[in-house]
Amino acid sequence: MFDFKYFTPTKVIFGRNTESKVAELIKEFGGSKILIHYGSGSVVRSGLLKRVTDTLDGAGIKYVTLGGAVPNPHLSLVHEGIELCKKENVDFLLAVGGGSAIDSAKAIGYGVANEGEVWDFYDYKRQANACLPVGVILTLAATGSEMSDSSVITKEEGLVKRGYNSDLCRPKFAILDPELTMTLPDYQTACGCTDIMMHTMERYFTNGGNMEITDALAEGLLRTVKKNALILRDDPQNYDARAEVMWAGSLAHNGLTGCGSDGGDWMTHKLEHELGGLYDVAHGAGLAAIWGSWARYVYKDCLPRFKKFAVNVMDVEPEGTDEQIALKGIEAMEDFYRSINMPTNLRELGVEPTEEELIDMAHKCAVGVGGKKGSAKVLDEEAMLAIYRASI
Amino acid sequence: MFDFKYFTPTKVIFGRNTESKVAELIKEFGGSKILIHYGSGSVVRSGLLKRVTDTLDGAGIKYVTLGGAVPNPHLSLVHEGIELCKKENVDFLLAVGGGSAIDSAKAIGYGVANEGEVWDFYDYKRQANACLPVGVILTLAATGSEMSDSSVITKEEGLVKRGYNSDLCRPKFAILDPELTMTLPDYQTACGCTDIMMHTMERYFTNGGNMEITDALAEGLLRTVKKNALILRDDPQNYDARAEVMWAGSLAHNGLTGCGSDGGDWMTHKLEHELGGLYDVAHGAGLAAIWGSWARYVYKDCLPRFKKFAVNVMDVEPEGTDEQIALKGIEAMEDFYRSINMPTNLRELGVEPTEEELIDMAHKCAVGVGGKKGSAKVLDEEAMLAIYRASI
Repeated sequence: MFDFKYFTPTKVIFGRNTESKVAELIKEFGGSKILIHYGSGSVVRSGLLKRVTDTLDGAGIKYVTLGGAVPNPHLSLVHEGIELCKKENVDFLLAVGGGSAIDSAKAIGYGVANEGEVWDFYDYKRQANACLPVGVILTLAATGSEMSDSSVITKEEGLVKRGYNSDLCRPKFAILDPELTMTLPDYQTACGCTDIMMHTMERYFTNGGNMEITDALAEGLLRTVKKNALILRDDPQNYDARAEVMWAGSLAHNGLTGCGSDGGDWMTHKLEHELGGLYDVAHGAGLAAIWGSWARYVYKDCLPRFKKFAVNVMDVEPEGTDEQIALKGIEAMEDFYRSINMPTNLRELGVEPTEEELIDMAHKCAVGVGGKKGSAKVLDEEAMLAIYRASI
Repeated sequence: MFDFKYFTPTKVIFGRNTESKVAELIKEFGGSKILIHYGSGSVVRSGLLKRVTDTLDGAGIKYVTLGGAVPNPHLSLVHEGIELCKKENVDFLLAVGGGSAIDSAKAIGYGVANEGEVWDFYDYKRQANACLPVGVILTLAATGSEMSDSSVITKEEGLVKRGYNSDLCRPKFAILDPELTMTLPDYQTACGCTDIMMHTMERYFTNGGNMEITDALAEGLLRTVKKNALILRDDPQNYDARAEVMWAGSLAHNGLTGCGSDGGDWMTHKLEHELGGLYDVAHGAGLAAIWGSWARYVYKDCLPRFKKFAVNVMDVEPEGTDEQIALKGIEAMEDFYRSINMPTNLRELGVEPTEEELIDMAHKCAVGVGGKKGSAKVLDEEAMLAIYRASI
């Protein structure tokens, strides 16, 4: 196993109507002038934003608001937020929404707390020294950004999507009220479950440094999400199932499921990343569409893990050769994706890239990872192209 | 399930020789004058204390030292530490050791940061407003105090043992180097594994508010410790097994295995507590000696959990009635305790209370919990006495 650092300072307040505690939490962490940052109008339409501002008004906390954070949140809005915060002397950021609003708020936090252009951090040109404190009211269980050190921003010019990781941006608090996720469309719920499972699986399928306890926690998390995703497919208003998935989403990406490992594989994410750049597809659905082809390409090089996954997560009987068991696990995972109406190839995802586009995506993906990447199996450009072709 | 709060701000630095990072961690958390608090001479004899002070010297960090923290750490030493800290203007506490040194350091931290008598907090008379920051170099995997909000102190006058819980005392950092635990006697290692499992099991055996994901994590943790405790019995120098147990110890008591539940049962701890007051027994061994009698007394009132435990943790085949499966799980757990040379009754623990002493312990235990307590089954004084009698 590898040495590791584990740092999850976010105070999680979990349960019904916990958003009513937002004012006291902001005060606890020293906020006096707030930027409320949110995404689409659903936060407004549902009345959540009004409830939040009423609570802040009641507590005498001043705020300004900025909506419009979109999936793959835009750098231009981040710039707008930074200017607004500086003008209004904002000292605390409250993200109300899913990963887009949170990631965008984190970027605003970097921009306010450091001199110069914020994109520099995402462009790997320099490191941030600070970040304005961020709090979260989560409305979508998926990205895990509510506890993570990660923020992904898209620069519109050239559609460059980049992530920056630093403990500085880990939220001070995260309000997790499962009821806030009940109005999500079924497709979004399924995409979220897929994203949560993939955050765990990217860390699970490695050839380096795995700990038994980390594996056990990861397998338990995956089994829980798998079971409750099916419950939510049939009964979207099931509070307990919403809660299981929501808490799993935070734990899947706060670092817990990677302790002791080499950091994970992450190639499914990288391959999906290029797909998301070319087509307007939901991240979770894109991951599901790519995963099976990736898994079939790499599993022989990571056979003990794929076998363990098949038996411990997908309930495959440990009969036959290791390869047979591993393949049954991959098939069972694809069956699961189909059962929650997720695609398992690009056609089902609704996109049909040409051969030239596949070649272009593989090239961009290889450049994006510096040539080669992967832990289950190290993939070069040729391997990436082979996986894209197999995923059609 | 119940609403919950989850707050584990401790920065964990895990791996070989991570104690070399102690100076930079102290600086990161603002420490400039340190009290190094430790327990027995083993920290001195092993050379660990010298390595720590050399590192602090090299970084120009000033310190004073205070040894002598014993199991069930004493209030008098806490008072001594408080005086020393005030005299020397200490602003950061470094505990080097196991739960005793950490709990004692936390108490010193409360005493320095608050006016008045520190025992007031442990005596439930008032709440602390602050605590001096605490960092940990752990040498014994057991109590989980390196990430927990808990501190247990014994007032010598009348041998009153009390715990105080507050997020204020959660350590800023915890240095976990599994190699530091390799010199432990086998008995101590087994006691530690028992304590770790019991921290999880106390939360697991409840009749209220359990979450599937919490159960899955708890079961995974228990399976991991069970397996690695046996490895350490035969191969105490096994680094990987030491690491699995050490990380499990922190996760077992930082709150993770209780999310969504009613808080747990904790009666095995309470029953052991009185035993520890009367006899000089190791905490882990005392827990093992009591648990089976407790389990047989309560399992019918918490049957689904005992059945789940039997199947998912103890690998009992799910055949027969639920009661039969549950009982097989209890037997398997007792077999496991015996296999790591832990006692499963008071005789094996080496103590032989008289009937009068049993009655006295049951009475003190009932008074200590305010009459009745328990979640698997609510126990009154009569029930406590029955369990003590059955444990002889």
